[in-house]
Amino acid sequence: MFYIRNHFPYPVVDIRTWELSIEGCVNRRIKFQYHDLLQMPQVSLPVTLECVGNKRALFHPKVRGEQWELGAISHAVWTGVRLMDLLYSAGIQMHAREVIFEGMDKGGRTDRPGVFSYARSLPLDQSLNPHTLVALYMYGKPLPFRHGYPARLIVPGWFGMASVKWLHRLVVTEEPFQGPFQVVDYVYNRNPLVPSESPEPVTTIRLDSTIARPTDQEALAKGDHWVVGTAISGEDPVVLVEISTDNGTTWLPVSWLDPQEPYSWRRWCWKWTVTSSGTYDVKVRATDAAGHIQPERADWNEKGYGYNAIQHIRVYVD
Amino acid sequence: MFYIRNHFPYPVVDIRTWELSIEGCVNRRIKFQYHDLLQMPQVSLPVTLECVGNKRALFHPKVRGEQWELGAISHAVWTGVRLMDLLYSAGIQMHAREVIFEGMDKGGRTDRPGVFSYARSLPLDQSLNPHTLVALYMYGKPLPFRHGYPARLIVPGWFGMASVKWLHRLVVTEEPFQGPFQVVDYVYNRNPLVPSESPEPVTTIRLDSTIARPTDQEALAKGDHWVVGTAISGEDPVVLVEISTDNGTTWLPVSWLDPQEPYSWRRWCWKWTVTSSGTYDVKVRATDAAGHIQPERADWNEKGYGYNAIQHIRVYVD
Repeated sequence: MFYIRNHFPYPVVDIRTWELSIEGCVNRRIKFQYHDLLQMPQVSLPVTLECVGNKRALFHPKVRGEQWELGAISHAVWTGVRLMDLLYSAGIQMHAREVIFEGMDKGGRTDRPGVFSYARSLPLDQSLNPHTLVALYMYGKPLPFRHGYPARLIVPGWFGMASVKWLHRLVVTEEPFQGPFQVVDYVYNRNPLVPSESPEPVTTIRLDSTIARPTDQEALAKGDHWVVGTAISGEDPVVLVEISTDNGTTWLPVSWLDPQEPYSWRRWCWKWTVTSSGTYDVKVRATDAAGHIQPERADWNEKGYGYNAIQHIRVYVD
Repeated sequence: MFYIRNHFPYPVVDIRTWELSIEGCVNRRIKFQYHDLLQMPQVSLPVTLECVGNKRALFHPKVRGEQWELGAISHAVWTGVRLMDLLYSAGIQMHAREVIFEGMDKGGRTDRPGVFSYARSLPLDQSLNPHTLVALYMYGKPLPFRHGYPARLIVPGWFGMASVKWLHRLVVTEEPFQGPFQVVDYVYNRNPLVPSESPEPVTTIRLDSTIARPTDQEALAKGDHWVVGTAISGEDPVVLVEISTDNGTTWLPVSWLDPQEPYSWRRWCWKWTVTSSGTYDVKVRATDAAGHIQPERADWNEKGYGYNAIQHIRVYVD
């Protein structure tokens, strides 16, 4: 059930010849074969991945792209080697600023001629973060092919585009990467008519919360119902989730099903005792440790990224 | 991938004790065991089933219920015994008017107390139609449990609610059936404020056509693209499907991928050569043999049934 979003057709992977190479501003180019990585120290980390296009279908005016509703977010425990261990073994040079991560998937784009690999860069500090992994396992099993076998970058707390699948090449650079998936896609462009000189890049997961059940337009009987859902933030942890059943007039805190974990969504539940029939406008909002709260309206942008407005569903009690 | 829509939890089925009984206005009550049915003459028929709530999410104002988009329609070849053979072996009495079909699935409703089986009735003439089957096989294999094993009624040309799953009881009656899935659900109620005395019941599949690819808000490159989709009608066969890429100003006919078959959708394709970039409003409309054409606007009703307005998607060519 883990969501999948690719830009290109699935690549052909031959594990016998697959290598992960590190080049660029390093003291020595290195190539790791699959069994090299399997023999290195492994780290396991629960990380929730969310596509930055999740909830795109909720933007008004409508925005082009995959019309995701609530489903482009999933959770797994990832196991692999620390990216920093790989980079240090290559030796990072003084003037290095970024690391480019290239996947094996490639193809054309609608907006320009040529063939492109799916490639993204990360600042050096995030690349050296001990929690940034080159994952080889998902929930204890070798990565499923569709999720990036044999190796997938996992950048905890960042939107999913950073976690490059079918990883095969790392390039340490001193110049900001200018690939189309870095500077054309995955930037917040709030005014299509006036393209920004230096648009804000998409980085960490925005504070958001979602009701999984009941669903919008669902009919319920009077009595007790469990409202359940998730909340997440890529920066300051979620400390409070509140539910309103009167369209935002009054709010009540939920109970947690998950502990507060960095990089993971927190599932929550709330017991709703409905005694009178009618139409209910149910809302949910999350607050993080820095006191940020979800916005009433989404931050509209040309590509429909980062929708995190307070969710509103309508349910009917007969 | 065949869509599933149930009203109640899955029933418990023990094939060793399962029976299909026929009672009511018949000369002799009969019970068929599974192997009895297997030994009777089998008929195979390709039938497309569509939930009458398909496309409900497209209604404005929004309507309560499952927020189906385009996916609540699927096609299969069904094999089983003719319902008429079963009914004739029981002997239908002169005054019989309807047959009630009861599934094994049961449970509560939000709008009234009590436990109800999922049950629907059909007029006698439709019950005696040689194409109305008690299906035992789906694509040549015993019915999957989720699709009604061991036996499912298949009513060709009717919306899916008529094709009762986990069928175990037939009652031939002289009075119109008043079960909640006959008179409360599955009626077109166009004015919630003024409930009709005798609302129009949901019966056959409405004339409709759907674009499967490209998807709404998709971006394409200049060049050739195949637009593909389906068209269906439960009554007069679909004879024409037309595409417009200029928001309905001009229309061009598609090519057929399927022959004209009663009870089956017709898949079609249309080669679109796009030479100039821009935003395209693409529409599709079907015409049936009686000259009916899909409406511009959907026939709004309280439960969101039978949406068949001309589909409109927007695609971007870079």
